[in-house]
Amino acid sequence: MATIGFIGLGNMGGPMAINLVKAGHNVKAFDLSQAAMDTVVAEGGNAAASAADAVTGADFVVSMLPAGKHVQGLFQTGDAPLFDLISKDALIIDSSTIDAATAQSVSAAAAERGLSFIDAPVSGGVGGAVAGTLAFMVGATDEQFAKAKPILDVMGKNIFHAGQSGAGQIAKACNNMLLSILMTGTCEALNMGMKNGLDPAVLSEIMKQSSGGNWALNVYNPVPGVMEGVPSSNDYQGGFQVDLMYKDLGLAMDLSQQSASSVPMGSAARSLFSLHKAKGNGGLDFSSVIKLYQDQ
Amino acid sequence: MATIGFIGLGNMGGPMAINLVKAGHNVKAFDLSQAAMDTVVAEGGNAAASAADAVTGADFVVSMLPAGKHVQGLFQTGDAPLFDLISKDALIIDSSTIDAATAQSVSAAAAERGLSFIDAPVSGGVGGAVAGTLAFMVGATDEQFAKAKPILDVMGKNIFHAGQSGAGQIAKACNNMLLSILMTGTCEALNMGMKNGLDPAVLSEIMKQSSGGNWALNVYNPVPGVMEGVPSSNDYQGGFQVDLMYKDLGLAMDLSQQSASSVPMGSAARSLFSLHKAKGNGGLDFSSVIKLYQDQ
Amino acid sequence: MATIGFIGLGNMGGPMAINLVKAGHNVKAFDLSQAAMDTVVAEGGNAAASAADAVTGADFVVSMLPAGKHVQGLFQTGDAPLFDLISKDALIIDSSTIDAATAQSVSAAAAERGLSFIDAPVSGGVGGAVAGTLAFMVGATDEQFAKAKPILDVMGKNIFHAGQSGAGQIAKACNNMLLSILMTGTCEALNMGMKNGLDPAVLSEIMKQSSGGNWALNVYNPVPGVMEGVPSSNDYQGGFQVDLMYKDLGLAMDLSQQSASSVPMGSAARSLFSLHKAKGNGGLDFSSVIKLYQDQ
Amino acid sequence: MATIGFIGLGNMGGPMAINLVKAGHNVKAFDLSQAAMDTVVAEGGNAAASAADAVTGADFVVSMLPAGKHVQGLFQTGDAPLFDLISKDALIIDSSTIDAATAQSVSAAAAERGLSFIDAPVSGGVGGAVAGTLAFMVGATDEQFAKAKPILDVMGKNIFHAGQSGAGQIAKACNNMLLSILMTGTCEALNMGMKNGLDPAVLSEIMKQSSGGNWALNVYNPVPGVMEGVPSSNDYQGGFQVDLMYKDLGLAMDLSQQSASSVPMGSAARSLFSLHKAKGNGGLDFSSVIKLYQDQ
Repeated sequence: MATIGFIGLGNMGGPMAINLVKAGHNVKAFDLSQAAMDTVVAEGGNAAASAADAVTGADFVVSMLPAGKHVQGLFQTGDAPLFDLISKDALIIDSSTIDAATAQSVSAAAAERGLSFIDAPVSGGVGGAVAGTLAFMVGATDEQFAKAKPILDVMGKNIFHAGQSGAGQIAKACNNMLLSILMTGTCEALNMGMKNGLDPAVLSEIMKQSSGGNWALNVYNPVPGVMEGVPSSNDYQGGFQVDLMYKDLGLAMDLSQQSASSVPMGSAARSLFSLHKAKGNGGLDFSSVIKLYQDQ
Repeated sequence: MATIGFIGLGNMGGPMAINLVKAGHNVKAFDLSQAAMDTVVAEGGNAAASAADAVTGADFVVSMLPAGKHVQGLFQTGDAPLFDLISKDALIIDSSTIDAATAQSVSAAAAERGLSFIDAPVSGGVGGAVAGTLAFMVGATDEQFAKAKPILDVMGKNIFHAGQSGAGQIAKACNNMLLSILMTGTCEALNMGMKNGLDPAVLSEIMKQSSGGNWALNVYNPVPGVMEGVPSSNDYQGGFQVDLMYKDLGLAMDLSQQSASSVPMGSAARSLFSLHKAKGNGGLDFSSVIKLYQDQ
Repeated sequence: MATIGFIGLGNMGGPMAINLVKAGHNVKAFDLSQAAMDTVVAEGGNAAASAADAVTGADFVVSMLPAGKHVQGLFQTGDAPLFDLISKDALIIDSSTIDAATAQSVSAAAAERGLSFIDAPVSGGVGGAVAGTLAFMVGATDEQFAKAKPILDVMGKNIFHAGQSGAGQIAKACNNMLLSILMTGTCEALNMGMKNGLDPAVLSEIMKQSSGGNWALNVYNPVPGVMEGVPSSNDYQGGFQVDLMYKDLGLAMDLSQQSASSVPMGSAARSLFSLHKAKGNGGLDFSSVIKLYQDQ
Repeated sequence: MATIGFIGLGNMGGPMAINLVKAGHNVKAFDLSQAAMDTVVAEGGNAAASAADAVTGADFVVSMLPAGKHVQGLFQTGDAPLFDLISKDALIIDSSTIDAATAQSVSAAAAERGLSFIDAPVSGGVGGAVAGTLAFMVGATDEQFAKAKPILDVMGKNIFHAGQSGAGQIAKACNNMLLSILMTGTCEALNMGMKNGLDPAVLSEIMKQSSGGNWALNVYNPVPGVMEGVPSSNDYQGGFQVDLMYKDLGLAMDLSQQSASSVPMGSAARSLFSLHKAKGNGGLDFSSVIKLYQDQ
């Protein structure tokens, strides 16, 4: 069993850390929120006095932070960079969703100091974090990936090796941009059908079995009542918030700009989520974007 | 076994008629092209001297024509409308892909005369027409649908009852608009990944198993070499032409305008196919739209 | 002075007919609404008993109708086509805004019968119709244009000869599509500036004098209070309704589809007006589309 | 006459510095390129040995750098930050086009140290820089603006006070985003007209005098031959490069993301420039985007 320093115990990080605890690892957990730490301690984790305390002596460091500047500041450029404290034998697994350029830059800085830092953002939401069924998209060398895999297996179900450093963030940005396109496209096809008198359940079934088939129709139908147990049938509560999708689309725009990649459909989807968010819907599940289309 | 008048023996209509012949029906086939008729006759069909000859005495009439004006002219408003000749006991199955408004208008005109006309456009391409595995999206009453089903089963695999008159055309317009969105979205996600160094096969696999999963990734990958037996691995020959997708998106625009449905993503996809078509790619498979994104 | 049959006395047609009356012409006016006819009669026009009565013996026929099907039905394909009654010496000036294909088709049908039909849609709104300051975009031969000019001069200020038959409709579709782009673009630039703390009047002035200068900034600022006497400073009442812009963008889509012209920006603008219209804003002036952008 | 430290003597900065020299100011010029410095020295400027040398003892510092990271590094966070050397009585005028957030951050850091830093990006291109007719969009206090104005007047013609710190960058991002929309919109309206047989010069004239009027039609027509002396009539050489427009649209996307402003039209325009750039057109004038639309 390994000693794991875990930093960032929010909605996602908390349950991920707890799954590591349950698997028998020695988890030294840190968060700025005492309440978040208490939850992990209640499951058998150890409260670290600080981020520095969490990583000292750890075999693995797992971080789950809001944005690239936090990751860079914490490990590399802040007043007390953790890179000064982490063992050369340890593996740092950053599961934050951040821009690929920062992930690559921090990983390169680690390598220069003989440290090992990989990007491993997740998808699957809070539900997946709790159930330990997250998907991880990992940017790492083969060796790093092999070392990380047993730890990631505890927290997730599908562990993808996307490529070298940064590739995890790139794969996630591509996937989530595509997801935003599938969801808006599905909403507008269903809305047009409904405005012309079709039953959304019937139309959903037809498209699902035809060339319109996609993840949204399969497991996340945006029309209330068509599918049970999805956010649309629960007033668009829970799920994946519009604000988070908007953040991810911002990362996709950054990636497209840096690489001069054309993203007309992703840009169009971002515009729709932005218009939807402007009307006060940032806290709703992202499938609520169908409301933007509907007549008032 | 039924007597079936079949009008329009093109790339789609020809093999559909032949499947009816092979099932033992008495098919009276007509097309302006003698060669097209010869092909059906060679399989055991009967050549009709005219459209009028084809429908006279038929239990079913199946039509497969290019556009709404042809359907309306042939049956209702032309110089020798077939409605004057078709039996009140017959069922007219129009499998053309046309605008819903015309389908509804022709069907209503039929009903006024005591005739029965349903819309049943198909998807599945030439391959599906030959193999008898087309999907039919049917706009009809329950009674009409029940009567049509055994005939459609001969030519297709999935027979969907989309709703009342026009619903087949509406469902197809919705599905194909969504398809255009899935394909362009998939192309741009893959292109951005590749421009940032990811292997398209790896990225495809990740997204297919994640929330980016969709028909294009499952069975029609647009990147050459990722998947065997698809148009992208055959220089974008065969498959579903850009010109046909552009036609279908025009029908979707018509439907959106008539019903004041917002279709920002479908419109964006149409713009991309239009830009791609302008560079002389109308005859390629529609997954070739990935070339629009790629660096030259 | 000429004898002019005038058909269609709505918000635009009424004042146009009255200006012809005031200029001394013998105007035989017809509309399905008796009230509309009364208004013209009160100014010295003559009430025609029917459209047929209005055109019989006229030197000029001016029509102002809602859509292509009305123009085609009235003149060419209806039960009592006016082409049967109009003199070969007369000039038919259709000022309706309709699709170019119908305009060209009706004009060709007229020419086959030795009649002369031109398209001359207008811009300038109800205010321009009343003041006689409309712009006319004319599709006609040089000879037809020369003959129409004195009549159009009575109703308008800028009389443009856009080209041959249909060119007036084409020019109007191009212009109004561009207008929709200017307006939405101006709204979103101003909104982004305001959200970042800029004064809309200051930003408007800067862009007006810079490379962002355009008609909307010059005479139709969409932000309330920046400019006096425009719809934005009057609760978006009056002006050019969202519903009419949406109709014109539908015509632009038709034209783009028929000619396989790529219109990504026009399509994007249409999507925005469509989303705005869906929330019950069809009756507001089109500059109200800025509300779609604004936080709620 | 003032002592002015000028850093960054590229295509824009060089002629701007020379205009300050010609006006009699003592210009201490620095650039990493010796050739760039030689050009300014040949006009009577003084070569500084380093950026530090250029700003020491200066009454004004003017900087013209590629991106926010250069500005931030040079003045504030680099190894030898110029803020350590600049007089508290001096005014720092940054004319670089950078993101507003960085401009505000650097200005705030300056203020904390008792220094005065304003943003004053320009428009008008190399021609305007040489002729001294640039437009400056200035983010500054009233006092700072008053102090900067006489210096800016030497290099420019229209000096706009956009607002407080950052407002110059914000105004420029808004204006250039709107410009990208006007240009693409104008290209597509003209292309659709031409594909339908209209003469581009005639259509340009009609729209210029109608509600489609905008800067592109007035002074920068994208169709070769319509207007003399513009890039379109010179094989799209010179002018404002696609690569620069793409950079500016990236800044607009950043600004929209930070402020959660919806920019559907700006995003659509960015997509078009991106597609155009991907085909090797980054070095052409931005009006060449009309080639993206045209049939091949």
